[in-house]
Amino acid sequence: MTFERIAIIGLGLLGGSIGLAVRDHLPGAVTTGYDADPATRTRAAERGLVGTVCDSAADAVREAQLVILCVPVGAMAEAAAEIAPALPAEALVSDVGSSKEAVAKALAAALPNNAVIPAHPVAGTERSGPDAGFATLFQQRWCIVTPPDGADPAKVTALSAFWEALGARVEIMDPAHHDLVLAVTSHLPHLIAYTIVGTADDLEGVTQSEVIKYSAGGFRDFTRIAASDPTMWRDVFLSNKDAVLDMLQRFTEDLTALQRAIRVGDGARLFDHFTRTRAIRRSIIEEGQDDARPDFGRSDHGS
Amino acid sequence: MTFERIAIIGLGLLGGSIGLAVRDHLPGAVTTGYDADPATRTRAAERGLVGTVCDSAADAVREAQLVILCVPVGAMAEAAAEIAPALPAEALVSDVGSSKEAVAKALAAALPNNAVIPAHPVAGTERSGPDAGFATLFQQRWCIVTPPDGADPAKVTALSAFWEALGARVEIMDPAHHDLVLAVTSHLPHLIAYTIVGTADDLEGVTQSEVIKYSAGGFRDFTRIAASDPTMWRDVFLSNKDAVLDMLQRFTEDLTALQRAIRVGDGARLFDHFTRTRAIRRSIIEEGQDDARPDFGRSDHGS
Repeated sequence: MTFERIAIIGLGLLGGSIGLAVRDHLPGAVTTGYDADPATRTRAAERGLVGTVCDSAADAVREAQLVILCVPVGAMAEAAAEIAPALPAEALVSDVGSSKEAVAKALAAALPNNAVIPAHPVAGTERSGPDAGFATLFQQRWCIVTPPDGADPAKVTALSAFWEALGARVEIMDPAHHDLVLAVTSHLPHLIAYTIVGTADDLEGVTQSEVIKYSAGGFRDFTRIAASDPTMWRDVFLSNKDAVLDMLQRFTEDLTALQRAIRVGDGARLFDHFTRTRAIRRSIIEEGQDDARPDFGRSDHGS
Repeated sequence: MTFERIAIIGLGLLGGSIGLAVRDHLPGAVTTGYDADPATRTRAAERGLVGTVCDSAADAVREAQLVILCVPVGAMAEAAAEIAPALPAEALVSDVGSSKEAVAKALAAALPNNAVIPAHPVAGTERSGPDAGFATLFQQRWCIVTPPDGADPAKVTALSAFWEALGARVEIMDPAHHDLVLAVTSHLPHLIAYTIVGTADDLEGVTQSEVIKYSAGGFRDFTRIAASDPTMWRDVFLSNKDAVLDMLQRFTEDLTALQRAIRVGDGARLFDHFTRTRAIRRSIIEEGQDDARPDFGRSDHGS
């Protein structure tokens, strides 16, 4: 079972990258696409993100075997409702949302007559919109597939093979566990980055110009993910509230402990903590999940 | 007034990079160096980080016109005491420490007979040791010079010219203000990164393998600076305690406000915050302080 007609709803960073990756890796497949924003549709057509950019979500899915919803998590129910009347009964519906329990519920409720297997490719950049996508976004990245109870194993296999064809590695996971794992590897980091960038922006004793000039001391690293799409991230936090608040509580406890170590001058505790956290980066690089060069391989050292 | 004989005490990332940058940009200058670790001295000689690697700090500074202490902030007083007996009266002493009020006091106390003008090049990577340095580290980065009251303007100018020759831009700043600015642009980001990496490492419901595999969702960005040198960072937090605790308090308040917005489902507040933080990254890129390419220009997308 392979997909020859693929519809992509939402033509931003993720949707556009899927379209371009399909063109490169599945040359026999036909892609259709739609985006609610007319300017995005125009630009998507210019870039050739999909074979045909349609004027409605219904038109885009009318012949599809696989539909991938690439809209913010909070817009999934509405997108599903838009495609429902035109969706072929045998079409498989999936998505790329960053939280899975809420999305699974919304899609199952909106599309009771179709197979729905949510998924989440753990890949992206801080860019968004129809100019942000590129064909290699999923190379070496993990795509987490979260089939509901009773999902057809053949469909799970087909969806997994689709993502593998695009260069991803696939893991099958329970949606609730996905939401817990991503709360720590993605949602909490984004929340912390958004917070610290806001804190720096609000200071009265340090000018914004100073924050910018001396950002190479570490701050600039946080500004990258704090430049991510606001709508997408608002929806992620609202839809994965419980897991995010749980992780945030743990983080705050740990931060308080280090704060106390600084206040009382407990250098040994700081040193031990800072030594322990070195190891995890080595593992991430060994697993192929980050650039091994110093400074992420940034090219701003004038060479 | 230019420096023809430069001594570098401490041959890790910063000391080594200074030595290599002097070789490239000040071909007439002679460099000597010393490191307390014999293995580092051997490696520094192999890499040619300085012209002559000496067997003691005193030997390294005996003929120097400029001495730059490149040791952890907490080791400055001891390094100064080691060079004091051999230091020429006319030698200017500077450093590269990340906090400046504490270092200024320590150096002034240990070297009452010499001119001391502390400085801090805001540059670095997560690597440390004698293999970490490279000649272009300071290109386009700011070096903050913090002269004490009554410093000789000619010496301030000479030290500034030295850093400019190495590719840096120079700013003169009061040491207390430096410590406040760097608390937000460098020290707080490092503390937060160290915290979140520790939090992720301690979870019982999520395995370390999962944290590593799905780190491309944002977490991996934090692991870079959490891989920085533990001794250096222990000393930074202990020596800039007040400013760090002040910034931490502000950060915690802001985080609590966002936490509450998530808890009560205040999407508008989240959206507004996330929109505001986008602008600062644009400014950092425009000012030449980060790589303009998405994802820091990481090359791990398989292309």
